[in-house]
Amino acid sequence: MENILQNIHSPEDLRRLTGKELNQLPEEIRERIIDVVSRNGGHLAPNLGTVELTIALHIVFHAPEDKILWDVGHQAYTHKLLTGRADRFGTLRQRGGVSGFTKMDESPYDCFGSGHSGTALSAAMGFEVAGDLLHKDGRVVAVVGDGALGNGITFEALNNLRSACRGLILVVNDNKMSIARSTGAISRILNRIITAKLYNRVKASLKFVLRRFPHGENMIGSIRGLESSLKSLLVPGVFFEEMGIRYIGPVNGHNLAELIHTLRRVKDNDLPVIVHVITEKGRGCKYANEDPELFHGIGRFNPETGELIRDAGAKPTFSAVFGRTLERLAAEDPKLVTVAAAMALGCGISHEFIRKYRERFFDVGIAEEHAIAFAAGLAANGCHPVAAIYATFSQRALDCLFHDVGLQNLPVVLCEDRAGLVEDGPTHHGIHDVSFLRAIPNLAILMPANEDELPMMMETALKRSCPAVIRYPKGNSGRPDDDPAPAPIEWGKAAVVREGGDMSFWCAGREIYTAMAAADILEREHGIHAAVVNVRFLKPFDEALFRRYLSKPVVTVEDHVKQGGLASICAELAAGTPCPGMASFGWEADVIIPHGSTAQVRKEFGFTPEAMAEAAAKLVRRA
Amino acid sequence: MENILQNIHSPEDLRRLTGKELNQLPEEIRERIIDVVSRNGGHLAPNLGTVELTIALHIVFHAPEDKILWDVGHQAYTHKLLTGRADRFGTLRQRGGVSGFTKMDESPYDCFGSGHSGTALSAAMGFEVAGDLLHKDGRVVAVVGDGALGNGITFEALNNLRSACRGLILVVNDNKMSIARSTGAISRILNRIITAKLYNRVKASLKFVLRRFPHGENMIGSIRGLESSLKSLLVPGVFFEEMGIRYIGPVNGHNLAELIHTLRRVKDNDLPVIVHVITEKGRGCKYANEDPELFHGIGRFNPETGELIRDAGAKPTFSAVFGRTLERLAAEDPKLVTVAAAMALGCGISHEFIRKYRERFFDVGIAEEHAIAFAAGLAANGCHPVAAIYATFSQRALDCLFHDVGLQNLPVVLCEDRAGLVEDGPTHHGIHDVSFLRAIPNLAILMPANEDELPMMMETALKRSCPAVIRYPKGNSGRPDDDPAPAPIEWGKAAVVREGGDMSFWCAGREIYTAMAAADILEREHGIHAAVVNVRFLKPFDEALFRRYLSKPVVTVEDHVKQGGLASICAELAAGTPCPGMASFGWEADVIIPHGSTAQVRKEFGFTPEAMAEAAAKLVRRA
Repeated sequence: MENILQNIHSPEDLRRLTGKELNQLPEEIRERIIDVVSRNGGHLAPNLGTVELTIALHIVFHAPEDKILWDVGHQAYTHKLLTGRADRFGTLRQRGGVSGFTKMDESPYDCFGSGHSGTALSAAMGFEVAGDLLHKDGRVVAVVGDGALGNGITFEALNNLRSACRGLILVVNDNKMSIARSTGAISRILNRIITAKLYNRVKASLKFVLRRFPHGENMIGSIRGLESSLKSLLVPGVFFEEMGIRYIGPVNGHNLAELIHTLRRVKDNDLPVIVHVITEKGRGCKYANEDPELFHGIGRFNPETGELIRDAGAKPTFSAVFGRTLERLAAEDPKLVTVAAAMALGCGISHEFIRKYRERFFDVGIAEEHAIAFAAGLAANGCHPVAAIYATFSQRALDCLFHDVGLQNLPVVLCEDRAGLVEDGPTHHGIHDVSFLRAIPNLAILMPANEDELPMMMETALKRSCPAVIRYPKGNSGRPDDDPAPAPIEWGKAAVVREGGDMSFWCAGREIYTAMAAADILEREHGIHAAVVNVRFLKPFDEALFRRYLSKPVVTVEDHVKQGGLASICAELAAGTPCPGMASFGWEADVIIPHGSTAQVRKEFGFTPEAMAEAAAKLVRRA
Repeated sequence: MENILQNIHSPEDLRRLTGKELNQLPEEIRERIIDVVSRNGGHLAPNLGTVELTIALHIVFHAPEDKILWDVGHQAYTHKLLTGRADRFGTLRQRGGVSGFTKMDESPYDCFGSGHSGTALSAAMGFEVAGDLLHKDGRVVAVVGDGALGNGITFEALNNLRSACRGLILVVNDNKMSIARSTGAISRILNRIITAKLYNRVKASLKFVLRRFPHGENMIGSIRGLESSLKSLLVPGVFFEEMGIRYIGPVNGHNLAELIHTLRRVKDNDLPVIVHVITEKGRGCKYANEDPELFHGIGRFNPETGELIRDAGAKPTFSAVFGRTLERLAAEDPKLVTVAAAMALGCGISHEFIRKYRERFFDVGIAEEHAIAFAAGLAANGCHPVAAIYATFSQRALDCLFHDVGLQNLPVVLCEDRAGLVEDGPTHHGIHDVSFLRAIPNLAILMPANEDELPMMMETALKRSCPAVIRYPKGNSGRPDDDPAPAPIEWGKAAVVREGGDMSFWCAGREIYTAMAAADILEREHGIHAAVVNVRFLKPFDEALFRRYLSKPVVTVEDHVKQGGLASICAELAAGTPCPGMASFGWEADVIIPHGSTAQVRKEFGFTPEAMAEAAAKLVRRA
């Protein structure tokens, strides 16, 4: 059978395909996606759901003149395959390869980048207004998942849509899930539209009543004028129509002909319109279809069976330890309430936990701000809330952490998973949040160095009953097997994990192990004795201990931008003192750290024990 | 006439009043509010609108067991007067006095604090859930303005409300304004509910049609069953009913009897319910009623006439200069588009500007995230967006600044007004944002020292075509009359505004004038010659110039928290160098800066030329 995909270099080629070829294409695309994701990891289920939708969009709309914006961008693999990136698609998510999200500098077809959910409609409105002002011809389409429709930014945009724009097309990709099953009013509204067929039911009962009267049949005809005015209220989509946005749907998202027909119909519409497309996450792939949450974003797996390829002997992740600890603490403390924002599973919260603590577990959807303000309310009325949010997404809630939690000194414990580099690239690295967090009054910031310290810190923070953030990275600490059990946590105290009189490494979280390796090199190759300190608390910081080490060179090590991170904290304390030398390892705010394996990226950017040892040796020699 | 208010020490007393007394109370309260605000400044129009609503709430609900949460809290003066703070109300907004917002540590009746809009419903849901879990009896009421209903956080909460809560009461205080006139779909929906009387119209036309048929009159009776099922779809509030929330209203917010009756009716409701209350901003006060936007938040004025009391010879504010410059730049550049988030007037954007540039001005409502993502879209499609947001509210949009603007290097210029201390207190000080902003890639951060530099920086940033934030405080720079015109702006370069060889002050924005005063003292009293440097750019920072001054003591001066501000920037550069001494003046992240006159607060916290001179002299002597 001919390979169709390999001959598609741009959407133009798509429009030349025969009907037969067009019908064959989705299967080819799905095979390609499954093959590459099984080898490189990535987003599987959402991409399998948008194959036909993407083909239809690229047939009906003429990108890049027409602007197609993908919210989050994790469902845009087909878009990449159809816009000149099929050849390179095997490099997906690898260093130097194709990004797992839309990215402006990757292709002119990626007219706007993404990664965090909820921004596409706002940005599309900007495109629409600019296009109008500058007399550009292209149409603007935003593709937004049903989960993102419950996000505050999307709503702010919806609220502003009719006033600001004409003609914008909002495609709602409704798979009844964000990442986990969608929750909330919007999701119920979408479901009701699909299933209730309210209008038909009412119409039928009206006819039924009228038929019971003489001349009723005639009346049914005469009442048509009234009926059409009623219809505008009773049709599916009244919620959106109420907002001044035309509603079209629901459309079967796997029927190419129906999709093309509908999109053509709305293309030249001169009012904002919502096209409600029903898709199936994991479509065409048995295991992904059966467990779309597991196969939402995934590591390597066997493409035949869906069996995950796990590193032999891999240790439990911080996420798993968080989930296990949460379960124990929830059992011990009836006031403990858990709040998640659409990423419960990713944060290590199991389905069993959710079932068991149904009364005390809240997944609020892709709504980080609400999650934190809600947690603040819980705390203010006597509960012990634990919020679980990825570090990069918690950026959304910084103002709530400041305004609702910090200023009011409310005991909300935020556990930030994915704090540090991840493989997904710039939008997902959890390396910026501390910069702002440390400016928030009353807020403690803790980082466990290993899987033993995480439970200890969760207990400590809950017991302390103050606002606290506990940050830890994806994966595990990578601690050596003979790593001793940690000393008890003392509030605001660092822990010296290796003694040494020539200089000291000050390290955040698991970076103590990177520094230990550097210390080994220093000892072996330079005869330099380095201390390694686990700071444990970025705030309150162990100033007293730090000052004791200031007479010798200090090197800071953190998986965070240096500007506003541990490097700043230490520099502030050292400023104006006669410290004989300081160096810092971390990321530079103005250097965008790309996607790819974190080991590779660390090496490329000189974040290695070797580089740390070299820098330290230079400082010691100079001192 | 007897003074009723003086005998009310708690809501309990309120319930003992006679009908006549109750009728007299609103006028007394309004007089008191007008009197105090005319002397102390504060929020006038919103508080005059909620007098009857607050009385009714405190009669029907039994705070503090019942929890009443005020969104923003700028409409809670009556609440304060009725809950034991009438005696002290004359100290409103003064240092040590009653706060202009609800504040947990001010009174047990302020069960949750506020200042930023949109958080009350989320927090109320936390109260409701915690109350349920811990078997507390109190009901939970959130009072939210119609403007805040268009905010993303409120929507995230609404979306989650039905799943998470039972019984919560959401009072929508609908005055058709947030601060400026409300815009957007939600506001149109509320208006339609009030004016269209859709249900009645449809019912009337149904009757009209039926009457034209034989037996029609009988049918009208028989159709009642159908009618009631239609009604649930056709009544006002279908938008909210669609979200699973019962809608009651509209209620006249100045009719005490109607308010009490309605609130009693919903008090024991076991579903989330929205009570839609129509109020009038500035009610009972001619000038405030006629210009509620001007009298939203206001300085001192003549209580008889509403005439504002302006300092004789007061110089134009940064806001005014921003507005004037924006007008010139908009005239010169047809691609310039302005985006505001409900605070256009406060930011210096005049009604004339808005009328004149209707096509290129967008007030998106209380929606800072959308404002920034929208601006990013505008920039990506060729426009030159300028967003105008207060520094404290821009915290809401930090992730959009990171994800949509900075990472994509899009030329959005954000002009942050109110950057620095303000009189309103902890929730409103614009002293935290730089901490995060400087961790954002590609983003420049500029601070004009005076009213001449602001236009220069706006032009420079627009010309540079990169992501940029320009920050300036409330009021004017306070520069002396003989202050020379500034040198041209060079990208990333600081400006030495006073030469001196013994030490240097590094200053952000107008703090150069504070440092100049300190330098005068140093010269006069200590014979020390201090240089004063206007950093102009916090990012990119003039590292080269800074290093040249590092051989002498350095003192940093900024109206921002030191953690993550200019103090950090300088400390990072100085770390490990033999700088003979550093000191920094700014705010401490963990010390909450209260409300009150900024001059008084600065003095109290030692942010004065005298203190700076003393610290500098000490460093120079020690060096």
